[in-house]
Amino acid sequence: MRVFVYGKPQEVGEEFADHLDPRKTAVVSIDMHRGHLEDSPDCPCPAPRARDVVAPIDAFHARARALGVPIIHVRSVLRRGGADDIAGIPSAWRRTFPLHVGPIPNSDAHAIEGTRWTEFVTHVAPEDLIVETKRRLSAFYPTDLDLLLRNMDVKTIVLDGGFTDCCILNTAFDAANRTYRVVVPRDLVRGTDAYLEEAGLAIISLHLGLVTESADLLSEWGR
Amino acid sequence: MRVFVYGKPQEVGEEFADHLDPRKTAVVSIDMHRGHLEDSPDCPCPAPRARDVVAPIDAFHARARALGVPIIHVRSVLRRGGADDIAGIPSAWRRTFPLHVGPIPNSDAHAIEGTRWTEFVTHVAPEDLIVETKRRLSAFYPTDLDLLLRNMDVKTIVLDGGFTDCCILNTAFDAANRTYRVVVPRDLVRGTDAYLEEAGLAIISLHLGLVTESADLLSEWGR
Amino acid sequence: MRVFVYGKPQEVGEEFADHLDPRKTAVVSIDMHRGHLEDSPDCPCPAPRARDVVAPIDAFHARARALGVPIIHVRSVLRRGGADDIAGIPSAWRRTFPLHVGPIPNSDAHAIEGTRWTEFVTHVAPEDLIVETKRRLSAFYPTDLDLLLRNMDVKTIVLDGGFTDCCILNTAFDAANRTYRVVVPRDLVRGTDAYLEEAGLAIISLHLGLVTESADLLSEWGR
Amino acid sequence: MRVFVYGKPQEVGEEFADHLDPRKTAVVSIDMHRGHLEDSPDCPCPAPRARDVVAPIDAFHARARALGVPIIHVRSVLRRGGADDIAGIPSAWRRTFPLHVGPIPNSDAHAIEGTRWTEFVTHVAPEDLIVETKRRLSAFYPTDLDLLLRNMDVKTIVLDGGFTDCCILNTAFDAANRTYRVVVPRDLVRGTDAYLEEAGLAIISLHLGLVTESADLLSEWGR
Repeated sequence: MRVFVYGKPQEVGEEFADHLDPRKTAVVSIDMHRGHLEDSPDCPCPAPRARDVVAPIDAFHARARALGVPIIHVRSVLRRGGADDIAGIPSAWRRTFPLHVGPIPNSDAHAIEGTRWTEFVTHVAPEDLIVETKRRLSAFYPTDLDLLLRNMDVKTIVLDGGFTDCCILNTAFDAANRTYRVVVPRDLVRGTDAYLEEAGLAIISLHLGLVTESADLLSEWGR
Repeated sequence: MRVFVYGKPQEVGEEFADHLDPRKTAVVSIDMHRGHLEDSPDCPCPAPRARDVVAPIDAFHARARALGVPIIHVRSVLRRGGADDIAGIPSAWRRTFPLHVGPIPNSDAHAIEGTRWTEFVTHVAPEDLIVETKRRLSAFYPTDLDLLLRNMDVKTIVLDGGFTDCCILNTAFDAANRTYRVVVPRDLVRGTDAYLEEAGLAIISLHLGLVTESADLLSEWGR
Repeated sequence: MRVFVYGKPQEVGEEFADHLDPRKTAVVSIDMHRGHLEDSPDCPCPAPRARDVVAPIDAFHARARALGVPIIHVRSVLRRGGADDIAGIPSAWRRTFPLHVGPIPNSDAHAIEGTRWTEFVTHVAPEDLIVETKRRLSAFYPTDLDLLLRNMDVKTIVLDGGFTDCCILNTAFDAANRTYRVVVPRDLVRGTDAYLEEAGLAIISLHLGLVTESADLLSEWGR
Repeated sequence: MRVFVYGKPQEVGEEFADHLDPRKTAVVSIDMHRGHLEDSPDCPCPAPRARDVVAPIDAFHARARALGVPIIHVRSVLRRGGADDIAGIPSAWRRTFPLHVGPIPNSDAHAIEGTRWTEFVTHVAPEDLIVETKRRLSAFYPTDLDLLLRNMDVKTIVLDGGFTDCCILNTAFDAANRTYRVVVPRDLVRGTDAYLEEAGLAIISLHLGLVTESADLLSEWGR
């Protein structure tokens, strides 16, 4: 199968069969919710580039479900009142990201439970699974994702969603450390900007797992 | 103090005072051992770029100790026989990095306990602390670093060592998720290559903490 | 203050002041929901002894709130379909507890999200906090309780609810390991039976923290 | 096979086959070192009852090795200077256990690295594995035991050593929460005293796993 190593296409074969077995794989889709993706001035943590991958992610998930691969949607959810974030030790990005982009007007509303900002914009099927206590950047911390994957006997995770250089990358690190094999279809993730997206994918491809195209992965699964 | 946000210098002030308090800070120095840094054909996981920072790191640590900031040296150590890595589910980098650089001749010897590959090349003072069950990429997993920092009442960690785009970056993610403030002096870390080093620092500066120069940090601590 | 060490009353003084500072304390109330406490033949995991502590816990929480001590209610919640438990590797208690009590008729319904079995029977005030991804026995695993407590700058936790010899005990172990000080008011917890309740309290008092009466703790806080 | 549920013998059959497969099992032997077991007035944390199980544990381990079951020896090790314990937030037992037994004269020497107090009194074979960053009570926290077991594809752990009501019990809770099956041969563990030993085994048998005799387990493995 074709993979992209530091951006360059390369063929890999049987030695990566464990990364490509749909019976041991789950898709982990990260933070495809209104809080990042709504096209409005109130959007608390805008990630406009990721709007382009909503439809491709939905199409990929439909094909994956048809092959029996479970879809796990992960979202950031924070408690009202800020006890798990802004009322205590605010998330690091709240301090640093404005140094780059300036003030983020509605960022205090980010991911607050019970608001529309936590609604998924991608399709969630009845049989899909949801993980919703992501409070910081990784889909693994502090959530039950690891226990869920163990209990499902999943060995490989496919990551889609956003940001390639932030939550996707952090989740890929955590997954690799915990012995999961990692696959990232580059057409289903988006980064802060084109440079960081490319860099995030390069880092994943060198240290953490396989960077692919979703069509190639689906072909491989369907063989 | 001057910081580098996405590579550009910028002044930050009192609003980052919690990142710059030496009484609540520890330095975490990552993987400055022979297994990455020895200049020999047997070196199991070569990181030649990081040799340039051995002397600067030693100088920085001496100044930090003089100010009462503890130094924690973290190193990868793996059991003989491979039960925690190559005899089971090999670390992800063993599968992916050779796709970029070709076979790594002596990589099975990487970090094996009791060999010279785990010897630090930086100076370790008697009062320094060592964390030595890093088995994968993060200094936090699966080690006792978090418990140690809590017990020491440390709130901010300064990272030096290698790789900017790998273990440094992963440790910065884990630290930020666990509510630690992160500072990375860019003159004391090195990446896989210049591009990934710059990208790693950009990612840290946007999402995780402050990227500085060590001289500026020492001045700030000494005020 | 009077504590109970291995069941015997004993006075402790200033040396335990860090266990008794209401400004650094949160109450963690465990699994006081219908799934354990409803008096009906359908109750999926009956803990009838704990019904006796519903009113005392409510009274204690009211007094604690008045003193500014936050209340964190933790509950077990499991996904429909069983992916995080019975469809994979069932919780250990599902295998072993029936060896003692015989089949538990409706246990597959235990803690299923969206059912009445997850409703709290104790009072939840608007300012209280809820942790709801307890999937197994500890309030810490796999939940965000540790991150929440850190973010709130809590150093001591007071445990109430059930079972003294199971979830309370497991949570006390996890808390002590993570450097939290532990206090358990013995009048606000109940165990599987009187023998195991006494044993659970003895274990806590020797290895993990202080066993008290709630009235004594409130007096101490009010000083 | 015969198991002991709340102290009473009972036969279990095929429904517990996953607990009894030697190919998926490792033995985890906890804290059988001089710091608990040396018969001297300096012994920093005396557990004299556990001296009785040294020889039986050695015999069991020899039989297990012959059947291909790996032995993992876990020991508490603390840094000189106390940064991970007494110089910061002392372990809970240091505060509470003396309320029961009075001052423990040499307890500051407990588990200090490089001293004889960390030497195993049980036999360690060359092929055995060692986990040595247990800093508190559980063999899982903060150690690499979970990663090691995953990497070895172990699904069931057999616990021996001490204390039944403390480190054994805490490890059994952690293992069960993380989806491992737990088996505890009651003739190979010892508690603080006879009452707490019996209570610890009762708690394990109801909530966490199977309590057996080692001879029965070996017979079962040898079938």
